[in-house]
Order: sequence, then C-alpha cells, then structure tokens
Amino acid sequence: MWADLLPIGRSASTGGYFRAPFASAERELVAWYAEQAARRSLEVTYDGQGNAVAWWRPAGTSGANGILIGSHLDSVDNGGAFDGPLGVVCSFAALDVLRDRGVVPTRPIGVAMFVEEEGSRFGIACLGSRLATGQLSAEHATSLRDSADVWLLDAMNAAGVDPDLGSSSLLDGVEAYVELHVEQGRDLVDRDRAIAVASNSWAHGRWRFDFAGEPNHAGATRMEDRRDPMLTYAMTALAANKQARLSGARATFGRVEVQPNVTNAIPEEVRAWLDARGPDAAIVEQLVAAVERQARERAARDGTSVTVTAESVSPTVDFDVPLGARLAAVLDGAPQIPTGAGHDAGILQLAGIPSAMLFVRNPTGVSHAPAEHAEMADCLAGVEALATVLTELAA
Amino acid sequence: MWADLLPIGRSASTGGYFRAPFASAERELVAWYAEQAARRSLEVTYDGQGNAVAWWRPAGTSGANGILIGSHLDSVDNGGAFDGPLGVVCSFAALDVLRDRGVVPTRPIGVAMFVEEEGSRFGIACLGSRLATGQLSAEHATSLRDSADVWLLDAMNAAGVDPDLGSSSLLDGVEAYVELHVEQGRDLVDRDRAIAVASNSWAHGRWRFDFAGEPNHAGATRMEDRRDPMLTYAMTALAANKQARLSGARATFGRVEVQPNVTNAIPEEVRAWLDARGPDAAIVEQLVAAVERQARERAARDGTSVTVTAESVSPTVDFDVPLGARLAAVLDGAPQIPTGAGHDAGILQLAGIPSAMLFVRNPTGVSHAPAEHAEMADCLAGVEALATVLTELAA
Repeated sequence: MWADLLPIGRSASTGGYFRAPFASAERELVAWYAEQAARRSLEVTYDGQGNAVAWWRPAGTSGANGILIGSHLDSVDNGGAFDGPLGVVCSFAALDVLRDRGVVPTRPIGVAMFVEEEGSRFGIACLGSRLATGQLSAEHATSLRDSADVWLLDAMNAAGVDPDLGSSSLLDGVEAYVELHVEQGRDLVDRDRAIAVASNSWAHGRWRFDFAGEPNHAGATRMEDRRDPMLTYAMTALAANKQARLSGARATFGRVEVQPNVTNAIPEEVRAWLDARGPDAAIVEQLVAAVERQARERAARDGTSVTVTAESVSPTVDFDVPLGARLAAVLDGAPQIPTGAGHDAGILQLAGIPSAMLFVRNPTGVSHAPAEHAEMADCLAGVEALATVLTELAA
Repeated sequence: MWADLLPIGRSASTGGYFRAPFASAERELVAWYAEQAARRSLEVTYDGQGNAVAWWRPAGTSGANGILIGSHLDSVDNGGAFDGPLGVVCSFAALDVLRDRGVVPTRPIGVAMFVEEEGSRFGIACLGSRLATGQLSAEHATSLRDSADVWLLDAMNAAGVDPDLGSSSLLDGVEAYVELHVEQGRDLVDRDRAIAVASNSWAHGRWRFDFAGEPNHAGATRMEDRRDPMLTYAMTALAANKQARLSGARATFGRVEVQPNVTNAIPEEVRAWLDARGPDAAIVEQLVAAVERQARERAARDGTSVTVTAESVSPTVDFDVPLGARLAAVLDGAPQIPTGAGHDAGILQLAGIPSAMLFVRNPTGVSHAPAEHAEMADCLAGVEALATVLTELAA
C-alpha cells in the first residue's frame, strides 16, 4: 500500500508532498482509499463534508458500538509522506492482520478518513472532523475561501463531493476512536521505544494579525515620514518567539502576505498568522495577549495599526484516560506522551467520543517537511499495535 | 488624453493602478501611445527591447541632434495614475502647444516611452533604458523571469514585441533628454512651487536576502530545537530601518516570499528584498554591509543561514549641470532638488546623453500608491514648462 502512495503529490525537487484538500493529489488518495476499502469488502459511508468511514461489519454485529481507527490524507505544502496517510495505511493493514489471524470482531470496525486536517487550504485545522461533530457551524464553513478565493463549497463541488455542511451522521454509533500518527518530535527516540500512547493535546490556535500602514515609494519617502507595517510585523514576530520561550509555550509566524509586495514600495499591509500552543489554554491566552500588546506598542511608534482576529482556538484536550491506560497496558506499557499538534482525535474527544492516539517513532523528529520519517520496522510495529488494540477493544 | 488613460489598469476597489510591463493594461497604454503619435503624424521607431520614440522631424532638420522628452507607461502594483504616464501625456501636449504657437523646431523632437521602468515584473528597474544604452547585457536580460516564471523573452513575444536584446539604435542622434515626472515627495509643497528641476538621483540598489532554516511543525517543535529563518528576517528588517535612520539614507524591505508559507509550519526559507538608497554610493554600501553583518550575527544565533545577492546597484547620478542650470533659468528660477527614486533619465545620463528632469508638485507627497496626485493646474504648468524648454533647446 505504501508504494502506491509514495508518488502521489510528491515534489521531484524537494521530495516533499503537497496534498491539498479537494485538489488533485489528495483526490487520488481518496480514490485509493475507496479502492482499498472495496478490495476488503468494506462498506464506505461518506458525509456531505468530505469525510468517510469504511466499515467492516462482521455478521452479528450491530451498528451501535463501533470502534473507529484511521486518520487523514491531506498534507501541508512540502510536507512529509507520513503525517496522515500512515494512520490510514496502518488501519487497513491492521484489518488484514486480524483477518489473517481469523479474529472476528464482535463490533463493527471503521477506517476513517477526515478531510482538511491540516487547515492548509481553508485556514481551519481539523475542518472535516469539526464539521462532522457539529463543532463548526455550516454558516462559518460556507464563508471560508482559500488563498485563490475559491469558496469551500465550490472546492467540494469541483472535487465531486456533494456538499451538506449542516449535519453528519457519519460518527453515529462510534464508541471509541484510535488514531495512529507519526510522532512529531523525538520523544520516542530518547526513550528508545517504537510506539507511544498520547496523553493530551496542547491548547492551540491561530490568530491573524493585520498590520496596516501607508503605501509609499521606498526611495522617495523620508524614514521619518513612513508608516511601514513591515516593521511592526517584524517586531511582533520577534516578540512572539521571546514570549513563547519565557512561558514554556510555542509560537510561530510561518505565513506572511504583503500588499503590494514589491521591492520599491513601502507595504500598505502585512498580514501574518500566529500559531500558538501551550500546555493549557490560560498560558496560550496570556502568550497571545502579550504578543498583541507588544504589537500595539510598536504600531503606535510606527504610525501603523494592528487588528488581531482569532481564526481557531482549541483548548487542551485530555484524551480518554481509561482508554489510554487500557491501550498502554496492552502495548507492553507504552509511554504516554503529550502532543503539541492538533488532531482529529482531539476533536472527537471533545465531541464526547472516547479517543486515543498511537504515535510511531520518527527518527528525525521533523514533521510537516520532507525530512519527516518512520522506519518500516516501526510502521509494522504500528500495524501490530493497532491490531492488538482492536483485538482488545473489538474482539 | 488624461481621460483616455484613467480607466486603464485601474482597480475599482482601491483606485490604484497596475500596469505591468508586457501585460494587457500596459499594452493598452502602448497602443494609445502609438495612436497619439499617429494623430500628430509623428514617426514611431521601436527597438527590440520594447522601447519607442515618436519623432517630430520638421522639414530641414537632420536626425543627428534630436531633443528627447517622454517617460514610461508601466506602474507598480496598486500604484498611482501619474508616475510615468504624466510625462508622456505632457510631452504630447507640449508638442501641441508648440504647433499651436507656430513654433517650428530646428531639431527633431522625440517623445520616448521606456519599458519596465519600475522593475516590478523582472526585478531590474529601468530595464528598457538600460538595454537601449547597453548598460544591461542581453545575456543577463535573457536570464530574467517574472514571479510566475515567465521569461522576459516570452513575455515580449506574447506582447507582440519582436525581441532583439542585443543592441538598439533607438537613441542614436539624441543630444539631450528631458523627462517630466510627478514629484515623489513634498519638497515643492513646502516651497510653494509647481515645477522643479532635478539636481541628482540618489545612489540606490536592490539586494536579495535568502534566509534558510529547517522546516518543521509549528506545534510539535520545541522552541530550542528550531532553526527559524523568519526570526532572522524579522531582525534584519528592523536592523535595515535603524541603519538607514543612523546614516541619513533609506532602506526598505517591501517584498517577502516565504516557503512553504503555511500557518502551522516553521518556514524552510524566507526570501526578502532590500531597497537601499543614499546621497552617495559609499553610504549605501556601508548601509548594506551593516545590515548584512547584523543579519549574519542573528543567523548564527538562530541556526539559520543568509545569502545576500546584489540584484541591481546604481551610483549617484548628477544630471547634466549646464542643462539643469539652463532649464532652471528659463523656468523662472525653478528650484533644483535631488530625487530618491531612480529614473530612465539617470540611465541616459550615465550613457553620456545630457539629461534633465522636471518635477510636477504632488500635494500628498505619496507615490507608488493610489494617493499619488497632481492638480490639473500643476499638470498644465508642466506642459507649459516642457514647451518652454523645447523652445529654448530646439527652436
């Protein structure tokens, strides 16, 4: 299965992947997903939000107590091969292991695929799972556009999804969700273990900073006559880094858009996005407030203005404690570690579905970049871990 | 004439103009230029670089001692209406004034149109006049691509220009060039005058700064494990501003490109362009060296790297002193003021063609932005000034 996926959405120059939701590379993966489900005689249910679950419903099981595994298929631009697809591939492979061993589950098992997990196209991470669990309104989703001004609904229609943002029955009857994911850090390297269970997901969010100034000629405008929003932005980016270090949190400005973005013009506007995360919501809130305060102080000096808009804010999510303990126990005392990244499993947990995650060791610790990696032996350990978990929960 | 031009390339939302060289709005202006020349029975000569001169050759004049006036038609993105076209419109209008008055020149008078003056598309300001005067090699020009990876030669072909980058005889026989331009500053407002003569053009250049780091996940990567090039860039942008203030020069980072430019990824690369100007080349050189030194110091702290590439560097250009003095004298003692912007007149001066500039008062002082302005009365004063200059030089 892995060999099927490797060429899809891959950049020949960097080795990185770009699988934007509802665009061609990701749609190839979705078609591959349907094909894998068909090959295993799984029954695929789609919702009107682009998500899907491929169900294995052995005779005698009801639809009311399903165990869900899976992940997502999209990636950030120039991301790695593993973030997302590894969880889906391992899920199908775990079903194969159960069948090879003659295990017949007493509950339905579903392999989920949630859409736009990265938020790379429409700006809201876990868009699919938020919609499927009613944590994002149809009105809000309808207002979303990508950077090329394509509306979410138009992107869905173009991708062959018949949109129905209002409600989803996709997760009805799901009693637990276990998402396998490549680790995004080097904790397992340090511990010399292949597999971990997630303890919690840090509080995190995205804030859009709009810095507005006065466009003017870069050569003819005296320094003292300028209202240059680039300076306000630059100071804010440095402040975010410093505040995150001081507060034991994380802050990143990774996306910037400048108007008009030409060499010989002082910008009219600099728009930048702050990604902030921390062990609890209060720390993140204080961090963002401190960055905003410093941005405003600098704006007053620069004669510019700054507007801050929260685009998405997620609290700390403690994954289901009994479920996590049960998984760690059957996985030879796997360590339980927190994650700084957001995941669909966190969204399902917030929606009241007991959820857990398994992490597969990543030797580089890098993710969202071509260097993201997992050794084949560790991936197979992930498949085995999922099979063990399913045997524990569903057999 | 002005009414013809106002709608072309205008943004309905901002009122700003975008007339990129070899693209549709600018090509409409070029067609308008040819039409205005034809209406006046001027003989238009084109070169293989996209430039043109519309010649008025009264009977008895030779081709060897022409007086050139004119300017450019392209604009930056969301620029003003006046930067460039005002000089071309006033040039045609000045010919009309001479003819109305029955002045018959004893020398040919040409109205020039130089292409890609702003450097907004191919990154080199005064591209057309540099090529026409042999100050930019055909090899270098052939290697130029725009931000959509369109080669200069392909853009020329698409625009109907039959490219010949190697040489131009367009300016053969030109004895002097006088370019009228909207003022890019408020000097004339302070002096309560409508028209000035340029004394010199500041030394200036563009330097590309490539900041390279390590792409990684914004949430999962500890602050101390990062190699974030955005921080190095931010510090450099602030350093450039400070160094310019300290040295009586000007420095601007107005253009930034980030890879991959997504909210939840630490960038792999930040590419930014420094526009630096000063009263002499040594000051600019010291300024850029100081900025580069501070960038390298910060890069060492951030674990990133920085590469600096000079994309264009121009020395201070003193416009022709006798010509400037003669113009100031016939224009009622018009003030002589320096300009922080580069112009085709500076390129022709460097090529040995005695050149001068006339500036028309700009009440906002703003240029390269929608607020750029000149009152109609001042524009007419500009036409009158050009007619006076032509009567002095060519009658």
